Amino acid sequence: MPETIAIDDPSDPRMEVFRDIRDRDLTGRGGFIAEGTVVLDQLLSSRQFRPTALLVLRNRLAGLSDLLSRVPRGVPIHVAEHEGLDRIAGFPMHRGVLAHGEEEGVRPTPAELTASAAALGRPVVVAVGIANHDNVGAIFRNAAAFGAGAVLLDTPSCHPLYRKAIRVSVGTVLRMPWARAGSGTELLASCREAGYRTIALSPAGGITLREFGSDGPAALFLGAEGRGLSAELLKGMETVRIEMEPEIDSLNVATAAAIVLSGLYANYRQ
Amino acid sequence: MPETIAIDDPSDPRMEVFRDIRDRDLTGRGGFIAEGTVVLDQLLSSRQFRPTALLVLRNRLAGLSDLLSRVPRGVPIHVAEHEGLDRIAGFPMHRGVLAHGEEEGVRPTPAELTASAAALGRPVVVAVGIANHDNVGAIFRNAAAFGAGAVLLDTPSCHPLYRKAIRVSVGTVLRMPWARAGSGTELLASCREAGYRTIALSPAGGITLREFGSDGPAALFLGAEGRGLSAELLKGMETVRIEMEPEIDSLNVATAAAIVLSGLYANYRQ
Repeated sequence: MPETIAIDDPSDPRMEVFRDIRDRDLTGRGGFIAEGTVVLDQLLSSRQFRPTALLVLRNRLAGLSDLLSRVPRGVPIHVAEHEGLDRIAGFPMHRGVLAHGEEEGVRPTPAELTASAAALGRPVVVAVGIANHDNVGAIFRNAAAFGAGAVLLDTPSCHPLYRKAIRVSVGTVLRMPWARAGSGTELLASCREAGYRTIALSPAGGITLREFGSDGPAALFLGAEGRGLSAELLKGMETVRIEMEPEIDSLNVATAAAIVLSGLYANYRQ
Repeated sequence: MPETIAIDDPSDPRMEVFRDIRDRDLTGRGGFIAEGTVVLDQLLSSRQFRPTALLVLRNRLAGLSDLLSRVPRGVPIHVAEHEGLDRIAGFPMHRGVLAHGEEEGVRPTPAELTASAAALGRPVVVAVGIANHDNVGAIFRNAAAFGAGAVLLDTPSCHPLYRKAIRVSVGTVLRMPWARAGSGTELLASCREAGYRTIALSPAGGITLREFGSDGPAALFLGAEGRGLSAELLKGMETVRIEMEPEIDSLNVATAAAIVLSGLYANYRQ
């Protein structure tokens, strides 16, 4: 078991990065918070991100010894009792472990990511104007499950390192290659440049998923529920419809993405 | 525009059913709260549920006149200013309309629901031990999109009329036939009795979704993420796997359901 530091006083200044994480989530900040063992595992396996400090519930220490042994030397592992941890975090922290992390090195550009994903024959997912934290997290989770090579987000989309997006992604935002830069139009240009077929979902889509086939890797563009993608962006993309009951308005955007990515994955492996 | 009642005092006793709805959500109560226009639309179209009172933001009244004209006579439509509504609800209420609703008549039994869904050749979805409100709501939304004839829930599963489940379901819990009764084993018996093929998802599943085909209506059993379905329940069911990246643990349960239901829907319509 690596060395730990007991935190007896919730106002300890070393706890600053873990303080009131739920409220500060909305304000943006340097670094990010990873919650729970599954996300911590992803963080410890990441090449793009590294932990800077941990905060662990005392009664979870023994069960976490394998994970904690992978924490790099020099990264402090703080330990608190239940009540202290809740007071620091600002809400009941059932997960028992928090890590503060930071990005290392330079984030790749959308053009670099599309080029390397295309070289692997993998689809990419492009989020345009998706501000909802849960949806962005779920899009990452589904993109990872079905082998997407990268996730691209325009700047109006939610930052993937928001606490809730990380949690809903089950930590895949710390493993998947991604970039958040530019506009939908610029991301479309990057995808085309890399040779992608560009597709969007539409209830009035020209073809079904089954008809889409497996011909060349696809860049799947996702717009916000309700508003969707702009007419300008849709112009020249292929539109795919998911067959569903006629009176139904739409699916959740991450769910729709999962259905399409799953179909592409099965087509690709046939 | 139907007659409205101005609420100037947030402590007005007629506001009791709308008070602190977020906190009371966890405690259970008679009736339920429907938020927003999409859910209200479903409530007003429901044969199983009816509104008992509405609370509307004053500046949304004009835009809601079509919906409000469908509110049955005798159901009070209260109107409040923004600040008053937030104080009543206990949090910032962006949606602009709340309805309190109640169930009418007798809820059908699982056996009745499986019999009528089977008669229509529609799949059913069975939730076993799914306690998460968002997941239950999302399962309903996806079941409705892909034409499920009913949703069955065992008693450990979250009640579909919890505020958050209703909201995430975009009101489909007020339109889809459903029952929450008994154990997974009892629900399995009802499905078999009605002639359903019973299937469960498993990463080690015997067949892929594509191989499952369209032979007879299916009852899709869903277990909680992590724990899954019991070995006893799985015994004798067909297991289907969703092909995905080998290092990925699992999908969200409602997302996995959407993928399977979408595949069944497409198979069925071929």
